[in-house]
Formats: sequence, structure tokens, C-alpha cells
Amino acid sequence: MKVNVGLVGFGVIGSGVVSLLQEHAPLLKARSGVEIALTRVADIDPDRSRGVELTSAKLSRDYREVLDDPNIDIVVELVGGTTAAYQVVAGALEANKHVVTANKALLYERGAELYAHAKTARREIRFEGSVAGGIPIVKAMAESLVSDRVTTIYGILNGTTNFILTRMIEEQWPFQDALARAKQLGFAEADPTLDINGSDAQHKLYLLASVAFDTMPVKESILREGIESIELLDVLFAKELGYVVKLLGIAKLENQAMSLRVHPTLIPEGCALASVKNEFNAVMLRSDFLGPALFVGRGAGARPTATAVVGDIVDIAEGMLQNREFSASRYTSVCDYPTLASGEIVSRYYLRLATNERPGILATITKILGDEQISISAIHQKEGDEPIPIVILTRTAREQNVRRAAAAIDALDFTRGRTVVLHVEDIDL
Amino acid sequence: MKVNVGLVGFGVIGSGVVSLLQEHAPLLKARSGVEIALTRVADIDPDRSRGVELTSAKLSRDYREVLDDPNIDIVVELVGGTTAAYQVVAGALEANKHVVTANKALLYERGAELYAHAKTARREIRFEGSVAGGIPIVKAMAESLVSDRVTTIYGILNGTTNFILTRMIEEQWPFQDALARAKQLGFAEADPTLDINGSDAQHKLYLLASVAFDTMPVKESILREGIESIELLDVLFAKELGYVVKLLGIAKLENQAMSLRVHPTLIPEGCALASVKNEFNAVMLRSDFLGPALFVGRGAGARPTATAVVGDIVDIAEGMLQNREFSASRYTSVCDYPTLASGEIVSRYYLRLATNERPGILATITKILGDEQISISAIHQKEGDEPIPIVILTRTAREQNVRRAAAAIDALDFTRGRTVVLHVEDIDL
Repeated sequence: MKVNVGLVGFGVIGSGVVSLLQEHAPLLKARSGVEIALTRVADIDPDRSRGVELTSAKLSRDYREVLDDPNIDIVVELVGGTTAAYQVVAGALEANKHVVTANKALLYERGAELYAHAKTARREIRFEGSVAGGIPIVKAMAESLVSDRVTTIYGILNGTTNFILTRMIEEQWPFQDALARAKQLGFAEADPTLDINGSDAQHKLYLLASVAFDTMPVKESILREGIESIELLDVLFAKELGYVVKLLGIAKLENQAMSLRVHPTLIPEGCALASVKNEFNAVMLRSDFLGPALFVGRGAGARPTATAVVGDIVDIAEGMLQNREFSASRYTSVCDYPTLASGEIVSRYYLRLATNERPGILATITKILGDEQISISAIHQKEGDEPIPIVILTRTAREQNVRRAAAAIDALDFTRGRTVVLHVEDIDL
Repeated sequence: MKVNVGLVGFGVIGSGVVSLLQEHAPLLKARSGVEIALTRVADIDPDRSRGVELTSAKLSRDYREVLDDPNIDIVVELVGGTTAAYQVVAGALEANKHVVTANKALLYERGAELYAHAKTARREIRFEGSVAGGIPIVKAMAESLVSDRVTTIYGILNGTTNFILTRMIEEQWPFQDALARAKQLGFAEADPTLDINGSDAQHKLYLLASVAFDTMPVKESILREGIESIELLDVLFAKELGYVVKLLGIAKLENQAMSLRVHPTLIPEGCALASVKNEFNAVMLRSDFLGPALFVGRGAGARPTATAVVGDIVDIAEGMLQNREFSASRYTSVCDYPTLASGEIVSRYYLRLATNERPGILATITKILGDEQISISAIHQKEGDEPIPIVILTRTAREQNVRRAAAAIDALDFTRGRTVVLHVEDIDL
């Protein structure tokens, strides 16, 4: 049997998919029993050199040539963005084709309507490549853990920020130097805003949570902080306390409610997640029966992401071979959990404040914390000149209480600057 | 649609499967669209209390009641061992039923004939639970990486030995104390021989390699060493050199040939694999397109293994729902690589020898190594009383050369005892 694939978007990831399909075609045929033929490729800039030659696919400028070809069974959308990409995906479903995409922004923005469209059309939208690149986490959750209930997700979901934080921790570079190095090595784009401010990780966390919890979280309730204001000082204080700082996407299901957040997080330096360095991504799950599990791999790049995209293509192709009735059941909202407002999130916290020297300072600060029901688990004040840094680790407290306490501390006449508030998670794997 | 499942073997894992199927039945139905009904359970000791009640399945002593029931679609074999378990699996295929098993010993010993049987019968044998418990590594390789070529597997495949080595490294306990503690905590069986000597890890490595490389390795060529003779001294020397000792299963595909080995291995203390501690298992893969990837989770225990078993059940059940033609294509030997004889394996090595004090010792030893084409990358000799320990790290060398060199060193009149030979692997994730 032969399945025809059309590719829209012949950029970095697209080149990886073309390489993989062409180089490993005999292996794919032997393993899956299906001949997967890339027959059409479309890109707005067809003439650019990409370091890979199309062996048999026709290359055109207009994606409609892919959608209009009745022989094409599966459309791979690698355009990026949410405008043209939407047209491609919606158009492919309209033309009764299956879709494979690595576009997290599109699925974050318009996934709900596209899934509904896919269900009506009885076609699949697969998106393994859109979360954590080559790490097969969507399949692991949707299939391997089909019988289990995931309750916690910790994700290092953005390679750019993980690279920067690793350099800050290991080389003691300030943020700007680490960012410059990431750009130099190709781990950060010219405009890295969406990586640095946590938006990219937020998109991926949303997709992970929707698969894990069988429902779409409320986007507005997702707490998001980036790493742009992480100071080297806090990275070093964290290290002294036995923690490393990682940008984590965290989704939890507790008391029948979801909470989702992306923020810099102090995690114990000895845990396996802390050993995930540089541009690598990781997803740690905790579920009822399996307990903790960790998946680590390259979260970006042409070749790793291509394995995820082609894995999706083969799944659909095998389904066609087996005359599977495609029902897009994966997108059924089985559950209907509410999403906690970000102020209701419960976490441990790292607070750093700077004060002038004066009697009664600690009494005043600890009273503010106590009034907000925030218990202290550790406090460090170092000898030295003003301003004196005080670092406090709290027990679990509510986000809004901590924010109120920080504002009250900042309003004191002996504190200087703003209190740094970072989240702390105890991770036991 | 309803799929009927029969379970043979109501022991520890069996109880986990019963709990999972019963507790999460509504979730499973909602997600998969299939009602998975456990209708029969057989165990030679049906009267024992297991902490879980059967809600609707009939319990009997004779497994043939499961095989003879024409309504049962899938037989779950959790008997263990290779004798009765073989009868169950072969009998189930004979009766045209699909099989799910967590029995690595059975598949290691008789997998080839059972797969052949399954192909003829057009039925599935699934075995996710037989390797690394709840870690979904078989599916990841067979499906997510269907398009990629795995070239290296590093596995921490046995929780008992990983627990013991962790205690030796972290608490500086001798082997026997760590083993006693493992037994106390239930991480080692009363007779832990097959765990300690590497046999259990060897079975799992064999299964992993057969999935990764699409062919059955030659069992006799698998190098196997256990941890029974690991001395605390070597664990501590390794630590000084920046390494931790782990029992690894290693499979490599190099120059179109496979090599498989299970042995204590020095790996860099900073790598992610080194952070996998206590009873946890892990599999690190390296493949052409994905690059390095790591999977960590609980490798044993009723509840984690149950997720793998039920994941397999649901895969088959969904296939039945979709009228899939089962062709057991997963067991096709697509490739036909030879397996290197164990003496041909290439590795880096850690050598520790003890000598009397005498001039010219290092010259003699290094000449023996040089004559066997073994290059030294580091050498440490400490001041102190006789016998003087000398630790040598080598560059890559052939197993048989290193063994010959060690024998020649042991035959010198100034060396004492036997040279300790451990393998070293540089792991970059």
C-alpha cells in the first residue's frame, strides 16, 4: 500500500522531515508495511537552497496545489505562525485529508475549533512534534498511559531558556551574556522574546495538559513568568541552598481542579530533572499507578522534530492500511475540570529582599508573612554592608497571599528595591 | 463495543492489573471507546487474599478455563517462569486469542517461536510490561521511532541492583549491607541471584535490542557480569575520578554489527543517567535523527507494571474496535545484523591492581598494556603501605585484549590478588 504525503512549509523542520522520509524510506516500508511517498511540497520561497534535494516530490509556491491534489492523504503543516498555517490545516481537513503539525502556537490559539473540524471530517490531527520536539510524550500520555490518571506535569519545554539558565548556573554568567551565547550557537532566535518570556513553554504546557487531563484548560488562568528578570545573584543563592533554577511548565490536577503555570522554579539540585541541561527538554509526569516518570530529549531542531512528525505520519498511514475508522477520539473532552485562577495556585516560594540595617526588621517582615498565612521553612541573612540581602524559603502558600506580602514588604521604608519572588518545587525523582 | 479479558496469574502484578482495570474502568471506556471487561481470572492458589476484590470476574484454579472461554479476546499472562507460562501463551494463541505478557524470561527463552506462532495466528503478543516496568519504552521504539534507527541503548534495567549500587555510592555501605537493606525494603527478593548476577537485565536488554534493531541477537554472544563482586573500594575510587558505578545493559549497532552486554559500568557523575537512583529504571537511546533521549520510571512493582500491561490491552482492544487486521508485523525481522562475540566488544576500562613496592613496576605494567594495544588515559597511584593500589583508566580497547592484559598482570610476581576490570562509558546526556 502507498500513502501520499504533502508537505507545506519547507523550512528547517521541513528539511528534516524530507531528509528522514527520503533517507529511511526502505526502513519505513519494511517496518510499517506502508510505502510513504512524499509527492508534493509547497513553500512561499521554493528557490532557496536547503541542503536537501527532493528526490521525487513536486515543489511549488502555492500550498493549494497540495490541498487540491486528490491523491494526497496526509498534509504536513510546518508553516509556523497562526494565519497561513490555519488556512493550511483547515483547508486540508476540508479536503478530507489527515493533518500532522508541529505548530504549538496554532493549536494553542485555534486547536479547539480545528479538533472539532477534524472530528466532523473523521480525520486526524496529530501533533507530537509540537511539544518537546522529538520526545514522544504525547503518545506516551495518550496511549501508554491511557489507563492511568496523570496528576502532575513538570516540563522543561524550551531549549533556549534551559540553555541560558544552564550557563548562568554552571559558568556564573549574567543573563545577557548567556543569551548572547545562545544566539551565537543557534539556540536562540534573533528575536527570542517568545522563548524568554515563557510564551512558547506556555503553548506547550497547554497542549500537554489538554492531553493529560482530557480537557482544555482556561488560557487566561495560566500563570506565566519568563526568565528575563532572573538575576545571577538568585541563581547563586539558590545553588547555596541546594537548588537549581529551571524554567518549568507545571500542570497539576488537585482536588478535581487544574492549575497551570510557567515560571522560573527552584528544584533540588540532586533530582533527575535538574540534570537536564543546555538545550535539552524534559517532561516529568506523576500519575496514579505509574508514579513518577521522566522523558528527556532534544526539544527542537530539524532532525529530532522530524522523528516526531514522521511517527505521526506512520501512525495515520498504518491506520489507513488497516482500514481504521478514524474518529479523532483523542480530542474528546472526557473530563471537565475547572482551571484555578492564577492567584489561587499553591506553591513553596523563594523570597529575596534587600534592607537597610535597623532593629526589628525581621520581626516586621515575618509578621507580614505570618499575617498572610505564610510559614517560613528557612531564612538566611548574611553579614555585610547595606543593603543586606535576606533570603526566605517558605512552606506552601497561596500565590495571591505571597504577592500581597511581597507588596507590603516593598512598601516598608527600610526595604530597598522589589522583593524577588520565585517558586520552589520539591521533586523526588 | 466490549472486549473480554482473561488473566492468568493473580500474584503481585496481577493484583495491580485487576486494581487498574476495576478502578479506572470508566476512564478507559471514555478514552478508548471500548468497554474492557475482566471476565475470568485463574491462579493456582485462588483462595489467597490479595488486597483486591474481583468485582465481576470469575476466579478459578485452572488456566484452561480462561483459554477455553470463547468469549475471551485477550489473555494476560502473569504467571512468570517459562514452563506453565509457555503453556498459557501458546495455548492462548492456539485458541486465537491475543496475548499480553510481562514475562521477560519467557520471551528471552522462547520468544522467537511464540512470535512465529502469533504471526501464523494473526494475533498479537504485546510485552511492554516486561522491560523496565511502567516505562513505555517498547512503544516509544516500535512506534514513535518507527522512522529512526536506534544505534545505542544504555539501560538501568534492574531496580534491585540499582538500589544496592546507590546505597554503596551514597552511604558508602559495602555490597552485603546494601543487599540486606534492599531485602528489608522489598527491593530484593529472598533469592536475588538473577537480579544480582545480571540475568534479569540481560533478558530485558535482549528484548530492547530485538525491538530496536529489528532482529534477534545471538544470546550466547551477550557479555554478562553482575555486581556481586563489586567492592566498595572501587565505587569510591570511581567517585574520586568523577564517575558513578551503575549496572548497565548496553546494546550498540556499529558497522552493521550488534554488541550486547550487561556489566557494572563507570559513567560520568554529571550525566542524567547517573541521576537515576535507588529502585528506578532508565533507558537511554541514541538514534540517527532524534539523537540522545532518556526515559526514567519505576521498573517494577504492581501498579507501574499494570499501566504497561493495560496499555497493551487497550491497544489491542482499539484495534479490534477499528477492525484492524492483526498481522503481528512488529515481530518481523527486518534486518539481519550479526552479533559480535563478547571478546570483540570495544570499550573503555577501569583497572585496579595491587602491587608490592619495587622499582620498574609501572614500566612493566604499562608495557603489558601497550603490547595489547591498550592506551592509558589516566593513572593514579597513591602513597601508602603495601599493597599499593594502582588505578588505570584506558582509552577504547578490545575486551579480549584487556582480559589478556589483566591475566598477564595477575601473573607478575609483584602483583597481589586479581586485577579488577570494570567498563567505562562516556555518556553525553
